[in-house]
Amino acid sequence: MSRRVLLGGGVAAAGVAGIGWGAATLTHREHHTDPAARTVPFFGAHQSGIDTEPQDQCAFVGFDLVPGTDRADIIGLLRIWTDDAARLTQGRPALADTEAELAARPARLTITVGFGPGLFTAAALEHARPHWLKALPPFTIDRLEEAYTGADLLLQICADEATTVSHAVRVLCKNVTSLVRVRWVQRGFRNASEGQSMRNLMGSVDGTVNIASGVDFDRLVWDDGTGLPWLAGGTSMVLRRIAMDLDTWDELDDDGRELSVGRRVANGAPLTGTGEFDDPDFEAVDDTGIPVIPPSSHIARAHHSTDGERFLRRGYNYDDAPAPGTVSNSGLLFACFQRDIDAQYLPVQQRLADFDALNQWTTPIGSAVFAIPPGVPKPGGYLGQPLFEG
Amino acid sequence: MSRRVLLGGGVAAAGVAGIGWGAATLTHREHHTDPAARTVPFFGAHQSGIDTEPQDQCAFVGFDLVPGTDRADIIGLLRIWTDDAARLTQGRPALADTEAELAARPARLTITVGFGPGLFTAAALEHARPHWLKALPPFTIDRLEEAYTGADLLLQICADEATTVSHAVRVLCKNVTSLVRVRWVQRGFRNASEGQSMRNLMGSVDGTVNIASGVDFDRLVWDDGTGLPWLAGGTSMVLRRIAMDLDTWDELDDDGRELSVGRRVANGAPLTGTGEFDDPDFEAVDDTGIPVIPPSSHIARAHHSTDGERFLRRGYNYDDAPAPGTVSNSGLLFACFQRDIDAQYLPVQQRLADFDALNQWTTPIGSAVFAIPPGVPKPGGYLGQPLFEG
Repeated sequence: MSRRVLLGGGVAAAGVAGIGWGAATLTHREHHTDPAARTVPFFGAHQSGIDTEPQDQCAFVGFDLVPGTDRADIIGLLRIWTDDAARLTQGRPALADTEAELAARPARLTITVGFGPGLFTAAALEHARPHWLKALPPFTIDRLEEAYTGADLLLQICADEATTVSHAVRVLCKNVTSLVRVRWVQRGFRNASEGQSMRNLMGSVDGTVNIASGVDFDRLVWDDGTGLPWLAGGTSMVLRRIAMDLDTWDELDDDGRELSVGRRVANGAPLTGTGEFDDPDFEAVDDTGIPVIPPSSHIARAHHSTDGERFLRRGYNYDDAPAPGTVSNSGLLFACFQRDIDAQYLPVQQRLADFDALNQWTTPIGSAVFAIPPGVPKPGGYLGQPLFEG
Repeated sequence: MSRRVLLGGGVAAAGVAGIGWGAATLTHREHHTDPAARTVPFFGAHQSGIDTEPQDQCAFVGFDLVPGTDRADIIGLLRIWTDDAARLTQGRPALADTEAELAARPARLTITVGFGPGLFTAAALEHARPHWLKALPPFTIDRLEEAYTGADLLLQICADEATTVSHAVRVLCKNVTSLVRVRWVQRGFRNASEGQSMRNLMGSVDGTVNIASGVDFDRLVWDDGTGLPWLAGGTSMVLRRIAMDLDTWDELDDDGRELSVGRRVANGAPLTGTGEFDDPDFEAVDDTGIPVIPPSSHIARAHHSTDGERFLRRGYNYDDAPAPGTVSNSGLLFACFQRDIDAQYLPVQQRLADFDALNQWTTPIGSAVFAIPPGVPKPGGYLGQPLFEG
């Protein structure tokens, strides 16, 4: 049975926009006549911005802890961010918000906090660091730039309006400059038709294979605290900045693209199917015995070889000002969430690094990993509290 | 009579979102249930993107002509851009569009072309250059950076979706690299509630004083061809990149801000009124004889001293990645349109440069001026045709 069939009923009944974002998302979404007034709940077992239907605009902000910052400082920072996020996401100004009126249009704002490896060192909490929380191994395809790589802390700030994102980024950054330094800000955007995944700037439907149902989230995304009790309800995040060489990609015709990706350009259907969410048939061969989906294609290489290799894709396009003499500075802010980076993400990434037809046109230039603590169940708590007080 | 009263009837009847964009806009707007499917007509007496209700996302792209480019080359370029724009704005791929599917969501896309001073030199058309088309005089407040200053050609590309803007920018840039070099790309965004102007990243309501009715457009924005017949239906554009020092601005309380701007933070009303579109009363004094709106405030200095000093404001916020060690890289892409830069814009700009309370927190770091040719009346013509063949 295809995922489309599996999901079809719930999606149609709920009227959710992206078919990849199912029942788990709906509880996090209020319907409002003015899209700018819509809010996503802040308090809960999990942080929002993960099972939330992706908003149109996003900023990923990476921070370095100022040398000498200790556990108490970090707790103070997280208390501030928790309070700011609890207010801003509900359309209320942060405490001492100097542009309070910019908080009035939450537009489904979510603020998601992540902990990089360095935070555990600074806080003297190495024993509580997840084993998968470390820089990814170097891949031969990588051309990582320091400006986009690593960070001690992450904010993922998403909303349907760009002004909302800018205001939240500023509020959250400016009051904590004694404790952290902004290492990078990566802005992105995505737009999708109802019932279809977003398209990236190569024109390809992107992020089709995803995790939609509540059951799969519990199994594949949300940690259950077995290994580290503080992480129950949390997850992990990988952020990769993947530059696209659109100039050479544009020399390739649709046939070449479809054989490289393994999907139809028109609607993202696998070459063995007719709809985006049809399961690809990697065994199918044509009359001459040649596989319909080339084994070197992106989807053949990226496909999970076991159910445990699945993860949640939630990426954004980026398109920054080009360098002098060039036309484009574009790519994908690939973001994914999974319970265990080593077990779920790394085998897929290693296969793609070893060979992926798309590698000819894509280059990873940034990379960072984070532990995403659970949500704050109710007012009074703070993000990461089970780690620091558990 | 206040402008709100003057405009109220038409606006209410038409249900237009921004109160500053009146009857002239409505003909350029199709109502569609899916916002991504909405289109703005391309063909007409005027280019779209000027009297069009501002879209959420914008890219301003400045080009330098490659040395040796002549009149025939420029005509060829403009024929390509005209054909591309006529297709893309209607949700159809450009000719040889290598990401054709990205054209399927026009989202009110408009593509507006402008001619910088250098184009007239390269095309040996100095006699047809408007007298006001020259670099603005240097102002003492300016700290212009070459990377954002001047250009031979302009594309203003606006849509309600960021992916649409990125696709159009790439299509229009990549096929003409033998004739032009991208000098700068400046991305911006704006969001506004119904019946209110946008807010800038200082949190201020921005662009309240504007030109809304068809009659005022004919008088103040659209050239009638009296001086230069080729320009009939065209206009001029000034683009200023204005950096905001949000760190020091944020030290100012609301009272200080209101006295600096001359408007209420809460709703943009002048200090002598209650609603955003109330006419400010610069003569009003308080009990002690002190002007209610300080003469040094932004609106007192910016206010047109004669009706002929009015122009159309259509700016966008920008928020780029901050430099290392800083928190924000934000400001306003101030864009305005008027029949005559010297007569309408310059006196206002000179007053603001001489003194404006806001100058303490704002710095112009980019500046460019363009002649905006009329629209293409019907298929077969090209942008600028009356200039080259008139």
